[in-house]
Amino acid sequence: MREGTGERIFIKLGGSLITDKRRERRARLRVIRRLAEEIREALGERPGLRILVGHGSGSFGHAAAARTRIYEGISRPEDWWGFAEVALAAAELHMHVRRAFHAAGLPTLSIPPSAVAEAAGGIPIAFEARAFQRAWEVGLIPLTGGDVVFDRERGATILSTEAVFDALLEVLRPTRILLVGEVAGVLADGPEGHQVIPHLTPARFREILHAVGGSHGIDVTGGMRAKLEMALRWVERDPRLEVWIFSGRRPGALRDALRDPLRIQGTRITWA
Amino acid sequence: MREGTGERIFIKLGGSLITDKRRERRARLRVIRRLAEEIREALGERPGLRILVGHGSGSFGHAAAARTRIYEGISRPEDWWGFAEVALAAAELHMHVRRAFHAAGLPTLSIPPSAVAEAAGGIPIAFEARAFQRAWEVGLIPLTGGDVVFDRERGATILSTEAVFDALLEVLRPTRILLVGEVAGVLADGPEGHQVIPHLTPARFREILHAVGGSHGIDVTGGMRAKLEMALRWVERDPRLEVWIFSGRRPGALRDALRDPLRIQGTRITWA
Repeated sequence: MREGTGERIFIKLGGSLITDKRRERRARLRVIRRLAEEIREALGERPGLRILVGHGSGSFGHAAAARTRIYEGISRPEDWWGFAEVALAAAELHMHVRRAFHAAGLPTLSIPPSAVAEAAGGIPIAFEARAFQRAWEVGLIPLTGGDVVFDRERGATILSTEAVFDALLEVLRPTRILLVGEVAGVLADGPEGHQVIPHLTPARFREILHAVGGSHGIDVTGGMRAKLEMALRWVERDPRLEVWIFSGRRPGALRDALRDPLRIQGTRITWA
Repeated sequence: MREGTGERIFIKLGGSLITDKRRERRARLRVIRRLAEEIREALGERPGLRILVGHGSGSFGHAAAARTRIYEGISRPEDWWGFAEVALAAAELHMHVRRAFHAAGLPTLSIPPSAVAEAAGGIPIAFEARAFQRAWEVGLIPLTGGDVVFDRERGATILSTEAVFDALLEVLRPTRILLVGEVAGVLADGPEGHQVIPHLTPARFREILHAVGGSHGIDVTGGMRAKLEMALRWVERDPRLEVWIFSGRRPGALRDALRDPLRIQGTRITWA
């Protein structure tokens, strides 16, 4: 892969953004189509961008995972039925995203983690990244997402889109990672708050945690905490990398973010 | 992978069997469901069977491939749009097959060759088979099929299901390969004929070819010739392997073939 030819961007489209979490297997098709259109517009202006898109499973994978409980690992032969069920649910949403990107004129290559990754104790230990690399070389958009994968210790595990990005970090060396969800960023006033922290570094985050005495105040609950901790690890591993957490609900937000990162309204995470 | 625990069978469901070749993107859903049901019935009786299923692209992939002409290789950047289009068309049919297998109670793992294989000059040179192996270890049915893949010389190429089986032969060591199509077998009286040759070996095939002076008489045209030559190569590479070419149009034919190979009405290809 030729580096230095331009920006290399990983985009995560959050499950809560592209599905209706209240209803099982309900994709927000209009939102998905809009996001695809925004990416196409940005690429029209900046054809040198290399883009990789991953998406959460939202009400597709999560409902199936909750029902089959395979996130607890596989202990009985029947559990593999749950594995297949979660994989199929994730694939159904994936097809919606893939069709929407294709309809927007974006040529994608679908790479399901279940076909290329293997984990141990929930951590990817093998990840065949060749197809991702080839796709970027020729100008295709690799399309991936959260998925079930085999796990040497637990039988099976679920890899989030963030875990997939994590496994690809050294191979594809993104310059920017955009975590696009429903929430406007990391919030200073709790999960229901409105005050977005504009900039965080690993050092600044430790200071805040110390000051507020743990999980009070700043939203370090559940999904946001995991996302943020992953982002902090990423910038520690690659100090040139910028990670953004922002909302994709406003039409044009993703397009603007791809055109000019300074226009992103959200939380920027950098090493320094 | 533990060998010797039972039969290991690759099944190809032909594109002409599972799609209506006269109409673009028309799956024969009832046929697909019936074939899935027959596999489930056979597995109910012989739970020790290890099964891998691949399917052709029929009127999905072929129409897209003809329109985009990517089988001639990639020469212009725009051709990659055709690559994405053929991949998406193949994936649409794949989802039909996957849903039908799931509905029949068969837990599958989808492994698209475009994500795991790379070719050079049309021949697979790299094939990440780990997911296939793990699936068999835990009792999942790997589901794959004809697909576009990257090619180091041509940019891209199309791998048939037979080419995918070819790449997996040494890794998964099938004991039997069933090529299930619309035609009753290799025909002694030409492509429109009715006289099925019950048994062929590489030596016997060479004798016949010599006797009839090439491609006259015995059906060695087009798709059947490629299928047969591939089958002959397989049994030369593994003399313990049996390959069958038969029709899946008769309800019960695939189920019977899985229960008891001697019941297969078709052409059997063995080394001796």
